[in-house]
Amino acid sequence: MDNLALCEANNVPLTPITFLKRASECYPDRTSIIYGQTRYTWPQTYDRCCRLATSLISLNITKNDVVSILAPNVPAMYEMHFSVPMTGAVLNPINTRLDAKTIAVILGHAQPKIVFVDHEFAPLIQEALHLLPFDDSKRHPLIIFINEIDSTTKPSSKELDYEGLIRRGDTTLSSAASLFRVRNEHDPISLNYTSGTTADPKGVVVSHRGAYLSTLSAIIGWEMGIFPVYLWTLSMFHANGWAHTWSMAARGATNVCIRYINAREVYMNIDLHGVTHMACVPTVLKILLEGRRTNLTHRSAPVRVLTGGSSPPATLFEKVERLGFQVMHAYGLTESSGAALYCEWQDEWNRLPKQQQMQLKARQGVRNIIIDEVDVKNTKTLESVPRDGKTMGEIVIKGNSLMKGYLKNPKATSEAFKHGWFNTGDLGVIYPDGHVEIKDRSKDIIISGGENISSIEVEKVLYMHQKVIEAAVVAMPHPLWGETPCAFVVLKKGEDELVTREGDLIKYCRDNMPHFMCPRKVVFFNELPKNSNGKILKSKLRDVAKTLVVDEDDAGSKKVYRHGVEHVSSRL
Amino acid sequence: MDNLALCEANNVPLTPITFLKRASECYPDRTSIIYGQTRYTWPQTYDRCCRLATSLISLNITKNDVVSILAPNVPAMYEMHFSVPMTGAVLNPINTRLDAKTIAVILGHAQPKIVFVDHEFAPLIQEALHLLPFDDSKRHPLIIFINEIDSTTKPSSKELDYEGLIRRGDTTLSSAASLFRVRNEHDPISLNYTSGTTADPKGVVVSHRGAYLSTLSAIIGWEMGIFPVYLWTLSMFHANGWAHTWSMAARGATNVCIRYINAREVYMNIDLHGVTHMACVPTVLKILLEGRRTNLTHRSAPVRVLTGGSSPPATLFEKVERLGFQVMHAYGLTESSGAALYCEWQDEWNRLPKQQQMQLKARQGVRNIIIDEVDVKNTKTLESVPRDGKTMGEIVIKGNSLMKGYLKNPKATSEAFKHGWFNTGDLGVIYPDGHVEIKDRSKDIIISGGENISSIEVEKVLYMHQKVIEAAVVAMPHPLWGETPCAFVVLKKGEDELVTREGDLIKYCRDNMPHFMCPRKVVFFNELPKNSNGKILKSKLRDVAKTLVVDEDDAGSKKVYRHGVEHVSSRL
Repeated sequence: MDNLALCEANNVPLTPITFLKRASECYPDRTSIIYGQTRYTWPQTYDRCCRLATSLISLNITKNDVVSILAPNVPAMYEMHFSVPMTGAVLNPINTRLDAKTIAVILGHAQPKIVFVDHEFAPLIQEALHLLPFDDSKRHPLIIFINEIDSTTKPSSKELDYEGLIRRGDTTLSSAASLFRVRNEHDPISLNYTSGTTADPKGVVVSHRGAYLSTLSAIIGWEMGIFPVYLWTLSMFHANGWAHTWSMAARGATNVCIRYINAREVYMNIDLHGVTHMACVPTVLKILLEGRRTNLTHRSAPVRVLTGGSSPPATLFEKVERLGFQVMHAYGLTESSGAALYCEWQDEWNRLPKQQQMQLKARQGVRNIIIDEVDVKNTKTLESVPRDGKTMGEIVIKGNSLMKGYLKNPKATSEAFKHGWFNTGDLGVIYPDGHVEIKDRSKDIIISGGENISSIEVEKVLYMHQKVIEAAVVAMPHPLWGETPCAFVVLKKGEDELVTREGDLIKYCRDNMPHFMCPRKVVFFNELPKNSNGKILKSKLRDVAKTLVVDEDDAGSKKVYRHGVEHVSSRL
Repeated sequence: MDNLALCEANNVPLTPITFLKRASECYPDRTSIIYGQTRYTWPQTYDRCCRLATSLISLNITKNDVVSILAPNVPAMYEMHFSVPMTGAVLNPINTRLDAKTIAVILGHAQPKIVFVDHEFAPLIQEALHLLPFDDSKRHPLIIFINEIDSTTKPSSKELDYEGLIRRGDTTLSSAASLFRVRNEHDPISLNYTSGTTADPKGVVVSHRGAYLSTLSAIIGWEMGIFPVYLWTLSMFHANGWAHTWSMAARGATNVCIRYINAREVYMNIDLHGVTHMACVPTVLKILLEGRRTNLTHRSAPVRVLTGGSSPPATLFEKVERLGFQVMHAYGLTESSGAALYCEWQDEWNRLPKQQQMQLKARQGVRNIIIDEVDVKNTKTLESVPRDGKTMGEIVIKGNSLMKGYLKNPKATSEAFKHGWFNTGDLGVIYPDGHVEIKDRSKDIIISGGENISSIEVEKVLYMHQKVIEAAVVAMPHPLWGETPCAFVVLKKGEDELVTREGDLIKYCRDNMPHFMCPRKVVFFNELPKNSNGKILKSKLRDVAKTLVVDEDDAGSKKVYRHGVEHVSSRL
């Protein structure tokens, strides 16, 4: 029946760049960005992005070139999410918390033509560049600094800086029209590294189509209405700020940019600008608890907070909501270019006891609207696990927002996509109501006497103990059962091992979970080792746990543990 | 940089069918459809759709076949929006208000293999089939009746009916897996006729990709949160219910289906089921005013109403909002598979006087999130008109939700898409704030002495007259100025020409608009002629106006009008 040809009017390649032009035309009077004293409207942001894009083109940036940026959540970071793809190039935002060595590995792998660097990170990039192997065939990237817009120390006229490139950009209509037009929506738009610490860097390549659909699902999944005032407490270098960079243009939002994410800055900006929305990793929720203030609860509507990135304990949600925030929980990976699951709230749940509500909220939820399928599969049989909320399996995903693959890493790419799914490496369960809950990273699961023990489940119980502020559970070797849980715990200030003894905590665990799940060892730390994103480095804890030896008789009545660093003994 | 191949995990053809499977898995306990005593959950709706699809396949329905349906907003109508494309076939919903002759033209043009017919329209389809030219090469379509689910008059076991097909459908997993899978997202999903009255039927073909993106934009444009309770006051045969058919599955909504759209049914169902959302043409808003009730304003939140389809007067919005509804105005065409513009509300406008608010609300708004571009262009120079809210031009659109074209009508298709845009045929202006307002259909504009007069502008002023309940303004011939406005007016019951004289109304117009825009003739009707969608048939009024002759001396002091039907005289 159908021999209708497509034409330019009804077949437009999907790309999130279009949301910026739309914002400039449909929301001409609205504020796009607030950063300190700096204010832009959407037409100004569009103009600045066009200018930078034309300047980049004049610097020979062209399709599929990589342009990196090392910067916090400043306006330039936001703008480059549009201006770089406007040239056909691929944006590579680099985590500012990485060390020089890791940044050098990323630069060596991504081969950017230009690296934009916030002035604060000038020493870091210099150090990274020195670590880059010198190679005549590969020139060092051009470095362009991003100085504060209202900075009094202007760069010399010869020196290239971000604002200089914008000033010299050409925005006559013909130039804007001559900007790159996406022809193939599967072309890459961004390159985000999940890991660069080893010789096996994993650079996640996301397409224009993927980013476009992620943008729409980010709006729908969070039920984000028109004109939000969005505070950037989520780093834009995290999966392009879970695609919120582009979503905010699509929604005509006001982006409140802050350089440093701390309680004072967050609360001050919420008050000053009437923030309605923010997204963050659970660590930031903890920061909010520290710097609590009272008058947030007097606002007409609570600030809506989207959180995800690690499995936060339900108790954390409850505490944050008491401060006047309304928390939504989501789950995603860099590979899914933002949240793939949202814990969609059902009004009926409001009638449940608060604690039960928070347990429901701590689940990762149901797949977002543009994800085609999510399943939990037995890792051996590859069959779907029953929807019983108990049987664990690996969470697997199909959908257009998934990455195209890892740059120059076919082995990791085919491993990630084997069996026709994206294999997340996260182990979870699926409930009768369709909600998915993560139980562990597959490498973090503890297998004890053939039983799978979710380290997250054990941690949850530890977090509910009133003296514990941080807990991480990993496997330690056990002569009889292969592995057994070992807990690393940080106590609240003022508490210490003398007050809360290891034995007390283990007894508390025995009272609150099946015995086979209980840690047989508790180690007290002042601080847990974390990576640049604030995630607890369980690999390091495993290294410590490996050095602990269990000397246990069959009756389990007497044990001596030897620790590599210190000697610890305990009685169960 | 990019040689990454796509795979089945990250490259999924876009189709709204996926939203149904998602709803059945993510919202297993939620009610999908309410119709009288009938209730389904999302898994039940998914099961029914799979069953019907397998039955259709067993009836040799295959890719690109047309399956028509002639039915009101009953569950079958909803389900067929999924089950028909699940077979690869194309759904053709037929307007139930059409006459047999027009339906015969559509059936002759669309060539459906099967026509599903609601029992109420059995005589109508029989009449239409008799009008179909008999042709050995083209067999008549198979007719399958849709009876009420709880009907006591069961069809005989041999007779095919809708519920019978569902009962005999096969839903073993293997069958569901064997259902058609969309390979090319540009393949057609639906066929909606905008006009079938002439020898030039226009059947709008929409693709899976277009329908998918329309579904997402319908959610975002209306800011539709999770789990709405949606009352079907918009006919599903209107551009697939503006894509709300698919949106409701995507949102886990409850679809409240009603057979007859009248004030009693609407208010009763709002109360009974806690309706949160409804969409309708402005005519339905008028119905709501007639059957007003009081306790709607006591609800915690107003019922949200999306309206569009013709240009409603601002006063209508105000009256409806006073009843406890919150109206949003949108603009779309069958060719844009739903709303292309939404009048996105800005909170600052709440501070304006109510009348000014309603005037802002009566504008058609800004383009939806997935529309690539909307412009208003001078029809001669093809240049964009200035954004001054005054200069008229034709509204043109680019975007993925636009139709593929008109079925078997290359002439109309290329006309619609000439100059690289979809040309709406609607004349409008664009304001400095980016909002578009429609002034007229291009064929309805009145050109008087070289001046363009928007018939809608004149009508707006007439609608503000307290005795006028309906008004339509068309061109009548004028010896000097070529054309001049002629108004057709329906007065409130109890008022008549004796009370409100033509001269009074013309004087009222002169007091409220520029003289050149004033109607030189007012004709009073008891009812205006309307088409099956309730739109006023201006073509018929133009026929009447053509027979009116202006006999006017240069000074304009004395006129005699002769009407084809009746003699009318008036003084200005």
